[in-house]
Amino acid sequence: MIQRITISPQQCQGTSIALTQPQVHYLVRVLRLKGGDRFIAQDGNTQQWLAALTSQPELAEIIETLAPLLLCSPAPPLRLIAAMPKGNSFDQVVRQTTELGVTHIYPVFSARSLLKPSDNKLARWQKIAEEAAEQSERLTVPSIFAPVRFQQCLEQADWTGLRYICVARSHSSSAQNPDLLTHLLEHLISADSLSVTLAIGPEGGWTPEEITVANHYHYKTTSLGSAILRAVTAPITALSLVTAARELLI
Amino acid sequence: MIQRITISPQQCQGTSIALTQPQVHYLVRVLRLKGGDRFIAQDGNTQQWLAALTSQPELAEIIETLAPLLLCSPAPPLRLIAAMPKGNSFDQVVRQTTELGVTHIYPVFSARSLLKPSDNKLARWQKIAEEAAEQSERLTVPSIFAPVRFQQCLEQADWTGLRYICVARSHSSSAQNPDLLTHLLEHLISADSLSVTLAIGPEGGWTPEEITVANHYHYKTTSLGSAILRAVTAPITALSLVTAARELLI
Repeated sequence: MIQRITISPQQCQGTSIALTQPQVHYLVRVLRLKGGDRFIAQDGNTQQWLAALTSQPELAEIIETLAPLLLCSPAPPLRLIAAMPKGNSFDQVVRQTTELGVTHIYPVFSARSLLKPSDNKLARWQKIAEEAAEQSERLTVPSIFAPVRFQQCLEQADWTGLRYICVARSHSSSAQNPDLLTHLLEHLISADSLSVTLAIGPEGGWTPEEITVANHYHYKTTSLGSAILRAVTAPITALSLVTAARELLI
Repeated sequence: MIQRITISPQQCQGTSIALTQPQVHYLVRVLRLKGGDRFIAQDGNTQQWLAALTSQPELAEIIETLAPLLLCSPAPPLRLIAAMPKGNSFDQVVRQTTELGVTHIYPVFSARSLLKPSDNKLARWQKIAEEAAEQSERLTVPSIFAPVRFQQCLEQADWTGLRYICVARSHSSSAQNPDLLTHLLEHLISADSLSVTLAIGPEGGWTPEEITVANHYHYKTTSLGSAILRAVTAPITALSLVTAARELLI
């Protein structure tokens, strides 16, 4: 399998790609590529190039411009609003939801998760998303936004499409909160677009006030079933359902 | 929320529970429970008791025998056959699939994953499963079996129910291999039982020979969609789909 790296557009200089030090390290030390060995460079948006290392490690040569995303439409937005869990487990959320095709990640502070991540976290998460996109051969690297309060995130959002706030079992035993899969199978088929936004709470869940505010912004209350999932597992489960339900309709 | 621990049946002595040192550590040091504080002890099968710490840390008093599993039927088997990935990432598979309700885990060696886990791994995975079952308030702790070769696992298995082998996108572009969700929605409704077995491959996937052997044992070939998932994410996605599809039918 040919390896992929993500580059910024400025790195393309005519028929060459100026590699950064970490990229050289990854290609030469980690992947053990040599002069002449090929890899794919992608810009994280729609463009990709087949390239080869040259005798100068920091300079790669473009062999061919590849452009499959000009032939197929980009994936519809799949947005994740997620309360930040403790420790480093948001790294895992970023990595696994990227594999599953998330397009935008909005880490938020909620009433039950007030932890302020250190300043370098956002850059770290973006790096993890780039690596995960490369590994899973995704051309689109998700955008990760700076953490804000949950309510502020809802206020600022101007997107449309289906919107769900996922709540724990204890809140969802009534028929008013059908499972996410029930919702998706019912709504996706008649929706104007396949755009989906999911809000996933912290350990302990969203507060009733947070659910009310989200409902006000047209987020339907839904559950991820009778299982009690950790904050790190719930986004993976929810995104797995969205991508599978979408593929049923394609 | 009241905390749960898993005990072995021998620990129940009349109206008392003899706690092990790790359990005392967990209840007293980690959860900071004191004499009189309550918790639930479960035996990992059907039995559970409401108990309280006494003034002696290693002795808990049974307040009440709880028996909800006598009132509802146990969950139908949800078996995972999984090729073992490198490093410690199988820990994560065990933890997250337990949250999602797996009942049996069969780690296997496959043509593309020949790593032999160290001898203490099985005990470690069982411990992780117990902790995850407690956290997600599951009464049933999944059974984890000693690693065998994939083919040997298939030969030894005497279970019935729906069986799927999940393959990567490159093998599944044809209509012969519908997505797992398509399969589940079609098959679960007419199946004799809700028992499901999933075989998930290593990084790089199952070999064509392994797929042929599994087909021989009535495993239908299916895909987890167009995403390329790591070996640690694929089981979570597959189990999320099974549990959600089952709940649609309940």
